[in-house]
Formats: sequence, structure tokens, C-alpha cells
Amino acid sequence: MIIVMKKDADEDKIQHVIERVESKGLEAVLLRGEKRNVIAAIGDKREIPTDYWLAIPGVEKTVPILTKYKLASREVSPRTTPVRINDTSVGGDSLSIIAGPCTVESMEQTLSVARAVKANGAVALRGGAYKPRTSPYSFRGLETEGLEILAEARRLTGLPVITEVLCPEDVGLVYQYADVMQVGARNMQNYSLLDELGRYDKPVLLKRGISATIEEMLLAAEYILRTGNAGVILCLRGIRTFEDHTRFTLSIGALAHLKQVTHLPVIVDPSHPAGDSSLVPPLAKAAVAAGADGLMVEVHPDPENAYVDGAQSLTPEGFEKLMAELRPIAQAVERDIKV
Amino acid sequence: MIIVMKKDADEDKIQHVIERVESKGLEAVLLRGEKRNVIAAIGDKREIPTDYWLAIPGVEKTVPILTKYKLASREVSPRTTPVRINDTSVGGDSLSIIAGPCTVESMEQTLSVARAVKANGAVALRGGAYKPRTSPYSFRGLETEGLEILAEARRLTGLPVITEVLCPEDVGLVYQYADVMQVGARNMQNYSLLDELGRYDKPVLLKRGISATIEEMLLAAEYILRTGNAGVILCLRGIRTFEDHTRFTLSIGALAHLKQVTHLPVIVDPSHPAGDSSLVPPLAKAAVAAGADGLMVEVHPDPENAYVDGAQSLTPEGFEKLMAELRPIAQAVERDIKV
Amino acid sequence: MIIVMKKDADEDKIQHVIERVESKGLEAVLLRGEKRNVIAAIGDKREIPTDYWLAIPGVEKTVPILTKYKLASREVSPRTTPVRINDTSVGGDSLSIIAGPCTVESMEQTLSVARAVKANGAVALRGGAYKPRTSPYSFRGLETEGLEILAEARRLTGLPVITEVLCPEDVGLVYQYADVMQVGARNMQNYSLLDELGRYDKPVLLKRGISATIEEMLLAAEYILRTGNAGVILCLRGIRTFEDHTRFTLSIGALAHLKQVTHLPVIVDPSHPAGDSSLVPPLAKAAVAAGADGLMVEVHPDPENAYVDGAQSLTPEGFEKLMAELRPIAQAVERDIKV
Amino acid sequence: MIIVMKKDADEDKIQHVIERVESKGLEAVLLRGEKRNVIAAIGDKREIPTDYWLAIPGVEKTVPILTKYKLASREVSPRTTPVRINDTSVGGDSLSIIAGPCTVESMEQTLSVARAVKANGAVALRGGAYKPRTSPYSFRGLETEGLEILAEARRLTGLPVITEVLCPEDVGLVYQYADVMQVGARNMQNYSLLDELGRYDKPVLLKRGISATIEEMLLAAEYILRTGNAGVILCLRGIRTFEDHTRFTLSIGALAHLKQVTHLPVIVDPSHPAGDSSLVPPLAKAAVAAGADGLMVEVHPDPENAYVDGAQSLTPEGFEKLMAELRPIAQAVERDIKV
Repeated sequence: MIIVMKKDADEDKIQHVIERVESKGLEAVLLRGEKRNVIAAIGDKREIPTDYWLAIPGVEKTVPILTKYKLASREVSPRTTPVRINDTSVGGDSLSIIAGPCTVESMEQTLSVARAVKANGAVALRGGAYKPRTSPYSFRGLETEGLEILAEARRLTGLPVITEVLCPEDVGLVYQYADVMQVGARNMQNYSLLDELGRYDKPVLLKRGISATIEEMLLAAEYILRTGNAGVILCLRGIRTFEDHTRFTLSIGALAHLKQVTHLPVIVDPSHPAGDSSLVPPLAKAAVAAGADGLMVEVHPDPENAYVDGAQSLTPEGFEKLMAELRPIAQAVERDIKV
Repeated sequence: MIIVMKKDADEDKIQHVIERVESKGLEAVLLRGEKRNVIAAIGDKREIPTDYWLAIPGVEKTVPILTKYKLASREVSPRTTPVRINDTSVGGDSLSIIAGPCTVESMEQTLSVARAVKANGAVALRGGAYKPRTSPYSFRGLETEGLEILAEARRLTGLPVITEVLCPEDVGLVYQYADVMQVGARNMQNYSLLDELGRYDKPVLLKRGISATIEEMLLAAEYILRTGNAGVILCLRGIRTFEDHTRFTLSIGALAHLKQVTHLPVIVDPSHPAGDSSLVPPLAKAAVAAGADGLMVEVHPDPENAYVDGAQSLTPEGFEKLMAELRPIAQAVERDIKV
Repeated sequence: MIIVMKKDADEDKIQHVIERVESKGLEAVLLRGEKRNVIAAIGDKREIPTDYWLAIPGVEKTVPILTKYKLASREVSPRTTPVRINDTSVGGDSLSIIAGPCTVESMEQTLSVARAVKANGAVALRGGAYKPRTSPYSFRGLETEGLEILAEARRLTGLPVITEVLCPEDVGLVYQYADVMQVGARNMQNYSLLDELGRYDKPVLLKRGISATIEEMLLAAEYILRTGNAGVILCLRGIRTFEDHTRFTLSIGALAHLKQVTHLPVIVDPSHPAGDSSLVPPLAKAAVAAGADGLMVEVHPDPENAYVDGAQSLTPEGFEKLMAELRPIAQAVERDIKV
Repeated sequence: MIIVMKKDADEDKIQHVIERVESKGLEAVLLRGEKRNVIAAIGDKREIPTDYWLAIPGVEKTVPILTKYKLASREVSPRTTPVRINDTSVGGDSLSIIAGPCTVESMEQTLSVARAVKANGAVALRGGAYKPRTSPYSFRGLETEGLEILAEARRLTGLPVITEVLCPEDVGLVYQYADVMQVGARNMQNYSLLDELGRYDKPVLLKRGISATIEEMLLAAEYILRTGNAGVILCLRGIRTFEDHTRFTLSIGALAHLKQVTHLPVIVDPSHPAGDSSLVPPLAKAAVAAGADGLMVEVHPDPENAYVDGAQSLTPEGFEKLMAELRPIAQAVERDIKV
């Protein structure tokens, strides 16, 4: 931690900061500058929050040297740690394509999508049984019935299933049906939920909050990792910016940066940032070319009649076409992709 | 709802949209333009989500005419609906100043702040017993012990207490101690929590998410209101923007706009956007001058040793000075302020 | 400058950085940490750009200790430096209200506004003769004729006039007519224009770019100041964020922060962030309460028929009402306001 | 144009709006709704600015049906219009890779880069002679000497050259040396400059402003196109968002959307959003996979000693490696790439 003192901080204030640094078991080194004095606090105490130092009189700003997250850091492992889902894994040599409807609507709808996406190389089925909706007047999912449909679709197709869980008290139930439990963007910092998921032994797919920094996202992953659940898959799905022509802004730079700073696998959801099915393929291709470990794509047999997110859902034909287009790009970046 | 058709949408697509509009019990009016055709769907079916229309082939965009929220709308009441908290109320002629420590640390700390802020005109005490923290390694609150301290502070000072609740299963417990239950910014769209709070009969203070639109905030309020809890107080606390010199950006325009579109009281937390105690007074004054119904301010007897948010906490002396400065501004905008 | 080395930077890389620091005439202090090494470069060489250091192998990040701007810094003067405009000044004990039409449309329109705003306490007249317009198909101002109208309005009312200049080659002409030359938000980083304005002896009103940081704004001011023109007035007018219900987001925190870090006067334009005349008064009041040195407000005798920005223009009656409401707020923050 | 009336707008206000619509030569159709009335203004008068309608009493909001830009619209041509640069063109079947140093520093530096990038498939050389710099204390380019070096590099390598022009009065000079004149991000809305460039017959490379909407960017292009210069190449280079780990946020969704709404070629600068050379390759690959017509990449023979932007510059070896990696991706999206 580097502590920059205010220009007018006198000797007493400087000594006081040095005492505080030492009282935390860190070594203090005072650097006298022409206009500002700086105190370097040496040692690894990254759990001391930044505002601890900022509240001391005379301190102007602080600069962390170490990342706040530990278990999610690439320092833990120089290579991506694959996360196993039944007999497949995310983060290895193969590109993991997860696909399915935004929302589970019926056995027939779910099964037809599951079969179509499996035939075209998807390795897992996504589908929402519990839907967080901006408006309380919108459809909120089939709940337990949806979970049962997903389980039946798995039985019939062999595809593992990924579904969202909204609150701590639902985790136990969702765990019984799902192969991967998803934390949605709105819940990325729902710490009660993260704590609870950390106690289970199935992988968690953690979506980035629409205005979360990368550090905040990795600290959210840290909540799950520290309780003992090592199976965290990160998922980028677009951030909120001033752009008004797409639903969200997919940041490929965030993907590239994440691949440098964390050993956790990172996949991309191209459907939510697109908001429109015609924009899904270019975003999907960009993500694969930039090094994503996989994709999660919304597919619906009849988008016009989808309960939720029809506008951004691919048809099974659209998904087939996308997969055909993705294969040479995956090969170009030396990733296998299931045929 | 106004539905704008794509330039190349043919007659079949237009007729298809008209049928879909009529099938929802709405009247369809076709407007033929030089370059685009537009279909107006007349009638109040605001619960149909926007993506329902966008998923129909040939539709380019849709424009809602009605707000998606109903119960939170100013159309319900042309005047602000005061929310009663014990023997005071927020949203009436008086300015409601809520103050207290970020986090309840001890009986002594809480009581000293409570007495100091009461002496200077605060009408309620804030204090966190459960703290959502970005890092899992940070202090997360005294929990039940914190609630007991707050209740004791209320008994000794008469000030009602406001405290945050983090998940649905804690609501019952927090309800027993608190006079107002607070939903933090990270939980603004935690719908399980909002649903649960809607079932109780104590007021809810709903903080704006750091990247929530005003519509999303009012729809979050709608979750609570529709279940029967009419006591919702909105609280602005800054949004995340590219600005790098304050912790968040307090949008005074959002305050002014909210006062036009909702009948719910709106207060402002100047401490979180400031991030630094020296910036709290100008933000507080701006909020009062622009018509806020109240403020929620962090005060700590010893900011340097605060567990959380010390840098942005006022001392009791700083709070006293701020209150003295606020009084003439409150009078200038015709609001009473307790002496 | 603090230079943080990458975790894997070896001794050679560290020594190389130390040499580079010393070659620039700075003292290098090496701090060995548990996980990272840090090199402090001591001395004032703030003109060395950050990317100089970042391009050296092994460097992970750099942290500046000194601000990059000098002449605009509050370190130059602990009090605001008033900028004189004819016989008034901005940044002193009085609040400076500048008002007038967005665009000069005619002698009659300009004069009627000038008389109305003067009667209600405005100290200067604003009006655009050259208008930067997002679309090339929009009205772009009366140009020289507009300048002549402004000069005549000054002769008849005694109000100094402020008008925008768009490019370096127009500065000489605008200088002949205007008392203050305005740089619009789109031109805040038009360095050719800033350089040219630095060569003249009339004040410059510099508006913040819609996505400029505070540092970038002060560095833009520095362009003007360093060439010898000390008369720079800063003007905040809203930034671009994800908010969709106001035209721009007025950041009161930026105002409060600027008043701490620069000695230049800072005024606020409440009309552009509002985008709607009903939101102008709360923004104006907030700015005054938070310590603005003045306001610049759009006023039009017939907003419905204004060529530009009618929706956000106050009528003369609206301006009169606003001024009456501002007076007690100005007094509350100990600023005079002309009657 | 769709004009939504306020809830309380009475019959007089409605009739008044209808008269205003008809006075502009448009047909007015009144749609009476349950809660709001809407007036559709039918006909193509897109040059009437939005605020014209918003300023009429009783109008709540307006919704444009037509884009404000015409000449830049894909309605003009269903296919991308290639822009010719000497004997190559941007926007055709081949991917156009433009590369070179941020800044022209010397004949030797420029020529070594030019030869290296040409050998690896670049079709044009970039290099700045006039540099817009955030700080007035930074190096601002070799100016005329830089232009001469570029011209000499062209003579020796055959590569056309692209260089930035900062103000209208420099256009004539830059035109004599450059094959493509570049408008930087800070100048995207410098209308005096755009007007001037419209009068010349060499292509213009127009970079997106860091907070410009897509509509604003296309309207900036419209300034150049309407004066008769049809050679506009759009260049994306990242927008400013809350993300703090890359210099800017490259929006691939903006690229995909632009390819749908404009017939102008769109290229991507992966260097500026990256801010760090290690992030340039993933951004470059993403852009090609998503359908960019080309790239503009910063390359420097000795990044550590670059005057500007060293941290984000590739070495010639890095560029060679990137080109090898791009080839299979280009092929996957059916674009030729020069060997």
C-alpha cells in the first residue's frame, strides 16, 4: 500500500500514519518528495480496507499494490483451471458452448431446443426456472416445474443443465436439479447468495453485474471460492454505458484482461448485450476470437412467442448457422469445438 | 405502445403485427409514412413486456407511451405521500435528517452518535448491523448484537432506527428491531428481498442501484408496493460514471425528475457519492436546495477508527456545523427543519 | 511518481527502471515488498507523460503523486482568483448570473431578453452567433450579424456579452465583439483553439466536455493559462452517463471537487443538463447551494419558437421567478446576488 | 415523428400541436389513448430538430421514426461502399490493415516501421505529425517535418500514408502530403474541421469520439459527405465507460450495429482501447471476427523509447505475429488478407 500525504500534512501527521502502519504489522518507509510525502506500507495485509487509511488525518490518497482478491488471482495458477460439469469441462482445450431458451416454458419447448443445440455442438443446456424481472408484472418463471423439465431434458439428451438461483433459500432445491447454478447479473453482489453457494459442491456460473468493475467481479468469485467451492465460471454479458443502440456494451477488453488476471474460466453471453438476434453472431465470433473459454447463447424454437427475451433469441437454424461459422474461428485460436 | 416497422417490412408483416396487437385486447391504428410504417397500439396493457413486440418479425423498435410502473407513479397522487416512521414522517413539510454511523460498532459508539445527531435535529438514527462488503475479507457487521444496540439506542434517545437487511430470511428478525428496513444499492433488484419486504407493515428505505435507471428504481419500488406495503422511501446515493475524483456521481437531475414522476418521498445520501467528508456538506446542501425530502448522513465519533467508511463520515462537530448551514437553505425552499 | 513492478520482474528489469528514473534527473528509491517491488521516483517532473514509464519492460502500473496541471492548481492560490469582465467579476463575493438566449435570432429577440435578465440581476448576456450543431442540416447561427446584434445589445443595456467561438481563425473576429469568449463542450480539447485563445487578453469561459475528466478539463485550462491569458472561467454543464431521463448528468460532486483543487472560478450551466425548462430551477438552486461562483442560464422570450434549445429555455417570467428563489439560497451560502 | 402529449394536455394544446405539425408540411394524425394522446407527424422532414417539438406546450416527448442522417445511411446503398486510397481500397473483399507509429519521430524510425509493416501485409502507413495532447507540456509532433518524413516513407515503400489534421487551416497543407486525412476522437464534432475536409477530394478517416453516440458519429460523417467528399472511413477506438482496467472500452456491438446502418466502411483501432500492447491482439482478432473492414494498429521499433503511446505499441515482431494469427480469422469470415 502506498499512502500519499496531503501537501500540508505536517510532521505530526506523518508520524501518526507511520505508527498506524506499524501497528498493523507492516513496515513503513517514508519517502520525502518535493511537494508531497509518501509512505510505503510494506507487507501483505490486503484485507485492510482502503478506507481504513483514507480516514487518517493528512492522508490524501492510497494506492494498493496487491490485488484485493487472492484465490481468484492468476497468481494461484498460471493456467486456466478447468471447471468440470459432469463429463465435460469449461476452461480446457475445447470451447464450451452452452445454449438454450431464456426461460423454460414447457417440456416440449425445452426438449426441442435441447435436441437442436446438442445436435450442433452445445455441451450444456441453459434455461431459467426462476427469472428476475425488472417489472413485478412480468412472468417470473415456472419455478419447481421448470426445474423438473430441465432435469427431464437432461435425462433424455444427456446435456448437463444450467439454471439461475435467486436467493439463498432456493439453493438447496436448485442444487437437486441443476448441474451448474447460475448467479445473474443483478445478484453478482448478493453476498448472502454467494456465501450459500460456496457451501455446495456444484459449479457456479457467476455473471458480471452491469456496472461491476473487474475487481468487484473477482471479489464476488472470492466469496464462493473461500467457502470451499472451487468451481466458479465467470460469464461476461455486457455493461451499462451511454450507448443506446445495443442493450448493453460487451467489453472484449474486459475478457482479454480477465484472461490475464484470473485462472478461472471466462465465458461470454452474446445474447444479452445484443438485445437483437441479428447482433448475436458478430458478438459471439468476437468473443471466441478474443479467447473466451465458451459461450452461453439464447435459443428458442419460436422467438416470436417466447415468454422472455424473444428479440435476442436465435432460432435453432440460426444457432446451427452460428456454430458453423464459429468452427473455423475456434480453430484459428486453437480451440476444439464439438462437431 | 408505438410499434415502428422496419423499412422493408411488407404488407404481410404489417398485418401480422396488427393481429398480434388486437389479440392482446388493444386497438391497432396503422400509420403509413413515407419511409416507415408505424402501428399504434392503443389501450393500457403496460404489463406486456417490450420484448414481446420486438420479437415479432418486421418490427424495428417500440416506444412505450405509458410508464411501466403504476403504484409508484405521480399519477396516483399529485402530491408527495408522506411515509410515517413512529411519530415523525418523511415527505411532508419538514426536512427529515437521518444520521448515524455507517456501522454499529458498540453501544458506546452508537449511543454517542445518536445523542449528538438528535441534539442537532436528526429525526432518525441510521446504523448497519449487516454490512454488504465488496470483499469477503472485510468486516461484515455485528449482526444480531448490532440490532440490539440499535434498539437500545432508540429506547434511550427516542430516535427511530433504520438498518439494512440483506436477504429475505433476515427480514423477520430485522423487522423486530428496526423502524425502517433499508435495501442497499446492491440489492435494489434483489426481487426475493423486495417481495418479502412487501409483506411487512414497516417502511422500507430503497436505495438506488449504482447503475439503475429511474424506471428500474420505480419498478423495484413497485415490487414492494404491490404486495401491500405502501411505505416506500426512495434514496439516491450516486451512480457509477466515468468520473474518477468522487466515489460516485450524485445526480441532482435524477432527484428533480423523480419529484416530478413519483409521489413517493425521495431523500439523498450525500456520504456515499462523496467518499470524502469534505465533499459531504456541498452535496447535502445541493440536495436540500433541489427539493429532497430529507438526507441520510454518516456520522462517526472517531472517523479515523471507524470500521467502515471512515473517510466519508462526519464527526459530530461536522454534523452540527452542517445542520447550521442547512437551516437557511431549507427555509429558502420552504421546508421546516428541526432545531 | 510511484512505479509498481510486475510480480515476475527480475533484478535486471528493476535496475533498468532505476536507471531510467535517474536519467530523467529524479531520485529513485527501491521498495522491496513481499509480492511486488515498487520504485518511487522523487522530484517534480510532471511533464513526463505516464506512458513513458508504462512502456518500460517489467512495469505494471504507475501512480502519479503530483497533478499534471500547475497554473490551474489551487496550489497557486489558496483563494479563488476572480476574473474581471468589464466592471463586474466572476469568482468574488457576488454570485454571477449570466443569462440570455441559446442563439441570437434577431435584434428584437436579443434585446428583449437582455433587458429582462438585466432587470432581474443578470450581470452578463449570453447568446450564440456561431452554433456547433450535431446535424449539418440544423441552423448554425447568424454569424457576424449575430455578433453585431450582441454588441448593440451591450451598448443599449450595459451588459457585457459572452459568445462562443468555434475555430482558431474566428477568434480575432469574435474578440472584437465579445467581452468573454466561450469554448463549448465539444471543443474543450480543441487545442488549436485553446492555443489561439491564450494569446488574447479577454476572458475565456471553458465548458467541460461531456466525457472529460476533471484533470482533462484543468489541463485544457492550462493550455490557455500558459500562453499568458489568466482569465479562465470554468463552466460545468453535465456529463454523459447511462441516465436517460435528463439530457446530461450534472455532477455536483465535480463542482465541489473543483472548488478544492483549482483557484479558477467555476460556474454552472443548469440548462443543458436539464434539457427541459422545468428541471432548470432545481439544478440552478443545487449549484448555488453547493458553492458555484455563478450560473449561465438560457432565457428566451418565446421558447416555443426558439431556433435552438427551446425546450430547456426559461421565459423571462421563469427567470424572474428563479432569481427570486435563488436569492435566499445565495444568502444562505454567504454570496451576494444583485437585486 | 411521434409526439406524445402530456397526460394533462387539454384539447387546445392538442389542436395547437396539430397546427404546428401541419405548418411544417407534415400530415398530423391524432391517436387518442386511454391515458395519453399521441400525434403522429407523417412525412420526411428529418431536418426539423427534436427540440422544435419539445418546446411546444403540452408535449411530453417525441420519438423520431427516421434517422437524422441520410447520406451515411445504409438506405443509400445496401452494400458497403469501398473507399479508394491510391491503388488499394477499404471496405471491399480484403481486410485493410493500416499500421505505423503513433507519432513520426524521425526518418529512420518511420521508415523502419513502414518497411516492417508492409512486409507483413499492411496496406497503408499511419503516423502522426500533429498530435493532440491532453497536457500542453507534452510533445506535440514534428509538424511539417513529420509530413515530409511520411511522404518520403511513401516514396520509398509505396504505402499510402494516413495522418491526423487538427484544425481547418492545416487541411490544405496536410492534403499535400497525406493520402488519407484523419480526424481524431477529440475532433469528431469539430464542425469547422469537418466542413473544411468536405471540400477536398481525398478520403477522411473519422474516429469516433470517446462519448459520441452512433447517431452523432454518422451525423459527423454527414458533414463531410454533404459537401461533396464521399470518401469517409469510420474508425472505432473505444468509448469512455466506468471500466478502469483498459484505457477505453471497445464496443464490438457498435461495430456490428454500424455495419447494419451505414454503407461506409468501418475499421477498428485496437491500440487505443487496449492501452497496453498485450491486450492489442485479442481486440484486433475480435474486431476482424465481428466484421471490421480493417484495423489501424500502432507499431514502434522501440516502444520503450517511443515519444507517445509506447505502452500500447506493438514491436514489428509483435505485429508480424499478430498478422499471422489474424489470417485464419480473416479467412473464417471470408475476407482476404494480404500476405
